[in-house]
Amino acid sequence: VTGDAGRTIRGVAPLDEAGASDLSILAHPRYRKMARESSAGALLVKEGFEMEGRDQIVVADPHAGLAAILPRLYPPRAPQCGVSPDARISPGARLGAGVAAGPFAVVESGCTIGAGTILGAGSYIAEDCEIGGGTVLFPNVTVYERSRIGDRVTIHAGTVIGSDGFGYATQDGVHVKVPQVGAVVIEDDVEIGASVTIDRGSIGMTRIGRGTKIDNLVQIGHNVQIGAGCLIVAQVGISGSTRIGAGTIFAGQAGAAGHLRIGSRVTVASKSAVYDDLEDGSFVAGIPALDHRRWKRAQAAFARLPELQSQLRDLVARLEALEKGRTR
Amino acid sequence: VTGDAGRTIRGVAPLDEAGASDLSILAHPRYRKMARESSAGALLVKEGFEMEGRDQIVVADPHAGLAAILPRLYPPRAPQCGVSPDARISPGARLGAGVAAGPFAVVESGCTIGAGTILGAGSYIAEDCEIGGGTVLFPNVTVYERSRIGDRVTIHAGTVIGSDGFGYATQDGVHVKVPQVGAVVIEDDVEIGASVTIDRGSIGMTRIGRGTKIDNLVQIGHNVQIGAGCLIVAQVGISGSTRIGAGTIFAGQAGAAGHLRIGSRVTVASKSAVYDDLEDGSFVAGIPALDHRRWKRAQAAFARLPELQSQLRDLVARLEALEKGRTR
Amino acid sequence: VTGDAGRTIRGVAPLDEAGASDLSILAHPRYRKMARESSAGALLVKEGFEMEGRDQIVVADPHAGLAAILPRLYPPRAPQCGVSPDARISPGARLGAGVAAGPFAVVESGCTIGAGTILGAGSYIAEDCEIGGGTVLFPNVTVYERSRIGDRVTIHAGTVIGSDGFGYATQDGVHVKVPQVGAVVIEDDVEIGASVTIDRGSIGMTRIGRGTKIDNLVQIGHNVQIGAGCLIVAQVGISGSTRIGAGTIFAGQAGAAGHLRIGSRVTVASKSAVYDDLEDGSFVAGIPALDHRRWKRAQAAFARLPELQSQLRDLVARLEALEKGRTR
Repeated sequence: VTGDAGRTIRGVAPLDEAGASDLSILAHPRYRKMARESSAGALLVKEGFEMEGRDQIVVADPHAGLAAILPRLYPPRAPQCGVSPDARISPGARLGAGVAAGPFAVVESGCTIGAGTILGAGSYIAEDCEIGGGTVLFPNVTVYERSRIGDRVTIHAGTVIGSDGFGYATQDGVHVKVPQVGAVVIEDDVEIGASVTIDRGSIGMTRIGRGTKIDNLVQIGHNVQIGAGCLIVAQVGISGSTRIGAGTIFAGQAGAAGHLRIGSRVTVASKSAVYDDLEDGSFVAGIPALDHRRWKRAQAAFARLPELQSQLRDLVARLEALEKGRTR
Repeated sequence: VTGDAGRTIRGVAPLDEAGASDLSILAHPRYRKMARESSAGALLVKEGFEMEGRDQIVVADPHAGLAAILPRLYPPRAPQCGVSPDARISPGARLGAGVAAGPFAVVESGCTIGAGTILGAGSYIAEDCEIGGGTVLFPNVTVYERSRIGDRVTIHAGTVIGSDGFGYATQDGVHVKVPQVGAVVIEDDVEIGASVTIDRGSIGMTRIGRGTKIDNLVQIGHNVQIGAGCLIVAQVGISGSTRIGAGTIFAGQAGAAGHLRIGSRVTVASKSAVYDDLEDGSFVAGIPALDHRRWKRAQAAFARLPELQSQLRDLVARLEALEKGRTR
Repeated sequence: VTGDAGRTIRGVAPLDEAGASDLSILAHPRYRKMARESSAGALLVKEGFEMEGRDQIVVADPHAGLAAILPRLYPPRAPQCGVSPDARISPGARLGAGVAAGPFAVVESGCTIGAGTILGAGSYIAEDCEIGGGTVLFPNVTVYERSRIGDRVTIHAGTVIGSDGFGYATQDGVHVKVPQVGAVVIEDDVEIGASVTIDRGSIGMTRIGRGTKIDNLVQIGHNVQIGAGCLIVAQVGISGSTRIGAGTIFAGQAGAAGHLRIGSRVTVASKSAVYDDLEDGSFVAGIPALDHRRWKRAQAAFARLPELQSQLRDLVARLEALEKGRTR
């Protein structure tokens, strides 16, 4: 702490909205000017960005600092209590201690729901699902039969777990459905955003590894296997049967073809399309995805293609002049 | 009006489906042939596209004409009446006059709903939301706590307002959630399509400006600020903390990185990716987005790259011939 | 059959999960090693990939084989019975024999639902819809008024049929809504994935042709016409009024602009953007979409652009040397 350590802080707010009793955050040099002009009572500042004359907490990682501070300033709302009389829990389902279910939630027979799990209003859990403890399903989530969801998983509103994969055998132009008889496994500590779709395995399982975080509107195809601790940003699509290692990042709107092996600690840039296997630690970009440095150089050259073309035309003219000179 | 102004028109139909009592529309030259062959009783025609021998209304903007005519031919259905006995409205919520709520809609405590607002079946409004008057939520919409939605807003089915942003602090490969304690503000006269996701602010607000229209399956990240009168077409993604001015257009499947300043009256072409700040009035395309004219020329050159390569090979051969000639 | 035709098989499982009483599948050469090491009791093998010393069924198309075998090993669950007392079916709706509706499903007045159709929990069918027989709507599907859905149609959870198209007339910077008065027609034997959005016609119909299959998170704009037997893979977007022939394939995350004519048996590669009409049988890729072979060659050249640039610099230097030589 630099400055007045006794200052009272009641909330956290963005630099341009914060007042005298708010803490604000400076994690990126582009917000320096904004931080200087901010009325925030105190700042949470990344090492190296310290501001003169400010009451501030200097930390190596302001986002980690925020993650530690916020639960104290904003204690999580006491969890919803009990099962709403308007929820429909099958007598054939087993509920752990302290399970909460909002109005119009449905749990079908054969399900097991762990202690302290919260099922939002209008959520639907089909037959024979297993859901762990301390898990939260926000409203209007749909879970197809036989899904297995771990402990401390969060699934945001509107998401669909276990829908049929896109599997057809085409015979004389008619697409005959291949029955989808597998299921989905979501391991512990996974968070899944809003309106995500995760297809069940065609046969066998689609699996989301422990601690992986999935953003909104992502599509995960049938039999995809995602390792632990991956980050899958919004609107990404992973095609069927592709396997992804641990700690891999897909940035927004990227995609991967089916049946690939993508390693651990891979980074796929936003908007990119992976069509080939990738080794551990790869960093790729583009459609199709190339090594990131190569893509960057090729992309820079792409932007100069009009100049390159006129340079080429000029070369041709000069060469012709030389050729004429030689024949004379 | 050209032709018979006394003609009776009962409906509006596409050129190839319209009959003698239908009005149809000709707004684009590519439909001229279809218009000639159409059985439509009358045409609404853009100036300059007048058809000979037709009963027609000639206007500068046929879509504006249509917007004026349609409510007369298709008076909007009398709004749904009252609160369904199957809706669950918390006694701690305040409802204005004439609020309607479909079966299985849920309004939690602390909410205020303005006069004449309609909440579709199965929609869920979490604690402490403020929704204005004359607003329509279609079925199965989910609104997280403390969202503020203005007057005359329309939100289509399946959309999620206020889900948590994708914010984690990664420590030794473990992604620790940064609590998302902000909310969403949707100003008056906004329309939001189906299955859209708008994340709450991490701290502070995510804001959609007055009169902005958002199409289906769009993702808006935490703390994004969109100005008034923007058009965000289907499947666009805007990453966290990016600010967009007024009257800006993102065409379909485009995206923007986080923490950017994108000006007013900007046009981002479909499929493009904005990675840098953009000045007012910019028109960009490509991944990464370039000035639109430059992108168009570079893209034309890209398509000719195979020829450019063989041209280059030819140049090398001719140059070598010259070089040999000189050394002889 | 090669090997022991009397072997008892109880289930189907992926190569690396299958045991002695499981059938597994080998359809692609990349899984040969896995097949060799698999503990599967028997294999369903594509002609040409036969494995030595294995009990196997050799077929021309293993996916078609699977489609035939799976219903015997996994008989479909007896369909849900009857209408839940917690569903709300308008007295003004007509239901065929054996219609099932889950808890909190809503059917408004004027609807007709065909025999044996299943409406999932929390699904909502607005006024005056016609739904055929043998159709399945999974939970939390929303169908807007006057939609027409055929026989044996499957619609997965969270999907929205008939939302308003993105139609505005912009006057002095204000976007005035063009009322959307058309509807959606979904023909027989169509399957639609999870969280898909299909907009109603502005005037007239949006139409999905018989036997077409649509994957998750796809956006279909107003007045789009898709022919029979098409495959529309996940996260594709088709803009308003575009017409697509029969048997056409859009791969994942591709898109098409509005008002286009796209022929039959066309293939659009993943991530591509179609901005122009396409003839029958076209195969295109890229943004904008080019002939697939041309795109592939141009894309290969793109990856070598840095080398091409240095080659060009070298040429310039050599040419300058020659030019100097001549002037001396």
